[in-house]
Amino acid sequence: MILIGERINAGFKDVKAAIEQKDKKTIQEWAKKQAHAKASYLDVNMGAVSNKASDLCWMIESVQEVTDIPISIDNSKIDILKEAVKVCQKPPLINSVTAVDDKMDEMFPLVKESGASIICLVMDASGSPKSADKRVENAGKIFVKAMEHGIQTENLFIDPIIMPLRYMQDQAKEILNAVKQFTLFSDPPPHIVAGLSNISNGTVHKKFINRVFTAMLIANGLDALICDVLDNDLIHTILTAKLVMNREIFADSFIEAFEK
Amino acid sequence: MILIGERINAGFKDVKAAIEQKDKKTIQEWAKKQAHAKASYLDVNMGAVSNKASDLCWMIESVQEVTDIPISIDNSKIDILKEAVKVCQKPPLINSVTAVDDKMDEMFPLVKESGASIICLVMDASGSPKSADKRVENAGKIFVKAMEHGIQTENLFIDPIIMPLRYMQDQAKEILNAVKQFTLFSDPPPHIVAGLSNISNGTVHKKFINRVFTAMLIANGLDALICDVLDNDLIHTILTAKLVMNREIFADSFIEAFEK
Repeated sequence: MILIGERINAGFKDVKAAIEQKDKKTIQEWAKKQAHAKASYLDVNMGAVSNKASDLCWMIESVQEVTDIPISIDNSKIDILKEAVKVCQKPPLINSVTAVDDKMDEMFPLVKESGASIICLVMDASGSPKSADKRVENAGKIFVKAMEHGIQTENLFIDPIIMPLRYMQDQAKEILNAVKQFTLFSDPPPHIVAGLSNISNGTVHKKFINRVFTAMLIANGLDALICDVLDNDLIHTILTAKLVMNREIFADSFIEAFEK
Repeated sequence: MILIGERINAGFKDVKAAIEQKDKKTIQEWAKKQAHAKASYLDVNMGAVSNKASDLCWMIESVQEVTDIPISIDNSKIDILKEAVKVCQKPPLINSVTAVDDKMDEMFPLVKESGASIICLVMDASGSPKSADKRVENAGKIFVKAMEHGIQTENLFIDPIIMPLRYMQDQAKEILNAVKQFTLFSDPPPHIVAGLSNISNGTVHKKFINRVFTAMLIANGLDALICDVLDNDLIHTILTAKLVMNREIFADSFIEAFEK
């Protein structure tokens, strides 16, 4: 399972303030905590605080001073990404591009040249899809375009776009159905990733919903998650679901073994 | 979701002793507790303590003195079942028959006449299946035979046979795959049921494994479970998974609402 730590994001007040004040320490604390929790990537997002590549590069460099976990560059502007990719010490995961031809034709050469991986959202010019079929159609476009650009499936992450259970309840089942179909694209299939917290947006039982939905996503073939890697119950759920899917070898104390 | 309370089973020492001593009170306490937890059926199993129909009937009658929740008669001997069905005040769920023609031809007329429902295990004369394909093949035999006997899909519960994750780790994925395929048999499909506790047999993190596997089973279409209905975290997992599958209408405090 590829776990992408979500916490270094200007959507969180402390991170927003840290970017504004060039407070390296706050960002580095979150980097260390998430590294300790064994994140596979650390997402770095400057939100609307800045549109300068130099600020994003400063964030990435701050993170890299305290951990060698690769970066997930959370930005979709090609000019900014070109600069950000240069400062990454390990091949980054770019988050994200949409299923729009022009955007992909612009993004995929950068992905290919830099050895990065890329998260592709199954939305197109008409917006976010509302059905499993439309998600699969857009994922198909992404898949074909990525192959044309010589991007390996191991560097391709398809995101079905999670929608809030509270406001669009019918979408969760469509998403599960779409994930299942993505796994049939190739063997091995591309990675399938989701921004987990969206599912519980506006709900009372956020963590519980996150956890249960995660098990259901993994049952359908999802193998990567942008999430709170510090949520122990969530991590234990992921470990257990991986055992069920026969993707880790069973050990009696698998949770304790992971935490050591 | 159809929840079958597992606790009145001679596999538990207190219930075994209660049957031996004709101690009605212990059995009735479990009946009341599971009824309070909103079980849909109460499983009643006398194990190896007795092979007399009168003992099973005594258990059923004891339960019915304190609750009107229907009984799941956990026995596979036709002569005993014929007696037990007679004392049930509501149509029972018979647990279980295997995918063996002679057995089914004997059992299904009783099911049909009594208006009972029936749990059918996907095992045949050669034993328990080890693959999704074999499970689906046996489920197909069950489905066809049940239709020949005029049993409605709403009275048919197919059980994929859960095997312990610790000892047969590769089976969990096969089971999920089989469950998914059972849902394609008809529209609406037959019920799909599982004896949950088997999955965590011999493990350290029993409840955690039960819970995560349940979410994964529901993601694949399972709609009935023989389980510990007193395990709150499990029940909350089930409630949440049902919301995800759009089988219950979302409410902010869905857990509190259920518990009221």
